[in-house]
Amino acid sequence: MPFAQIYLIEGRSEEQKRAVIETVTQALSESTGAPKENVRVWIHDVPKTNWGIAGKTAKDLGR
Amino acid sequence: MPFAQIYLIEGRSEEQKRAVIETVTQALSESTGAPKENVRVWIHDVPKTNWGIAGKTAKDLGR
Amino acid sequence: MPFAQIYLIEGRSEEQKRAVIETVTQALSESTGAPKENVRVWIHDVPKTNWGIAGKTAKDLGR
Amino acid sequence: MPFAQIYLIEGRSEEQKRAVIETVTQALSESTGAPKENVRVWIHDVPKTNWGIAGKTAKDLGR
Amino acid sequence: MPFAQIYLIEGRSEEQKRAVIETVTQALSESTGAPKENVRVWIHDVPKTNWGIAGKTAKDLGR
Amino acid sequence: MPFAQIYLIEGRSEEQKRAVIETVTQALSESTGAPKENVRVWIHDVPKTNWGIAGKTAKDLGR
Repeated sequence: MPFAQIYLIEGRSEEQKRAVIETVTQALSESTGAPKENVRVWIHDVPKTNWGIAGKTAKDLGR
Repeated sequence: MPFAQIYLIEGRSEEQKRAVIETVTQALSESTGAPKENVRVWIHDVPKTNWGIAGKTAKDLGR
Repeated sequence: MPFAQIYLIEGRSEEQKRAVIETVTQALSESTGAPKENVRVWIHDVPKTNWGIAGKTAKDLGR
Repeated sequence: MPFAQIYLIEGRSEEQKRAVIETVTQALSESTGAPKENVRVWIHDVPKTNWGIAGKTAKDLGR
Repeated sequence: MPFAQIYLIEGRSEEQKRAVIETVTQALSESTGAPKENVRVWIHDVPKTNWGIAGKTAKDLGR
Repeated sequence: MPFAQIYLIEGRSEEQKRAVIETVTQALSESTGAPKENVRVWIHDVPKTNWGIAGKTAKDLGR
């Protein structure tokens, strides 16, 4: 029963998140042999003010 | 000092979340012997577009 | 589909962890109305050297 | 900078975990457009005594 | 490559979150010897209705 | 009540982990204004076989 928690910087479209869920589910099913039915994936949209890269926020870095 | 992180699909009322916190705290206190004062619980509301079940979003599945 | 991640200081017996899983599952089912079949719970055993309370490790505090 | 945390029931081989990392990284890169260089993935091996499905441990269920 | 996930009760200003990211990155770099460039930090703002202390929500406790 | 979850590649000494807990607690207290007594930190030691950087394991990369 593979589970995945995904962290993305905010701003992905619903279509991109759907693609994340489809492709990560497929990847986990293939790599572990678990049926796709058993895979669960959930995404956290992280605001740019809340994401720190090398001590700076993604917002301050212009990401 | 038991801690719990709870993931729920968005849409739960404040009253339901209060009940989650009360009952999970009680469950952890009883099952581990830790005093309720030491238990911490926090809930993540996961949007339907961000939750994947068997490769589909909860939104697309009509959950 | 409520999920719970539980963090406990290492040293709980298998019996205690079974009780955590049973009671937290029951608590989440009752408080959200989700069937028990849909609840998933997983426990992290955190070593005493890895758990910090007010800046000290649980080991140094004699927990 | 997509990150993924993966939870698997213990017992996967090193080869399977390598495959999880490769395929999930590929999946995240393709679905978000981020370069593979920016993707980070880490796996938690969850003991069978610590994983609860519908209120039972994976060990008790014979998984 | 030290990573940190931070959980704060909602309501911190952007300036405070910037300070969290700067100081936690510095702390992780100093304590582990990893270069600051390799440190990643992300913050979850937890709503007061979603944070449980000793079985009560932070909102009900007036935090 | 700031909480921090820290992910480190396995192999840090107990002394380094104590330093992580001390300095991160101090950093969170200073940056948020919360008393040190309210800060909790826990560390996950991630095996080199379980940590993926750009699609390769830390072990394969010789980290």
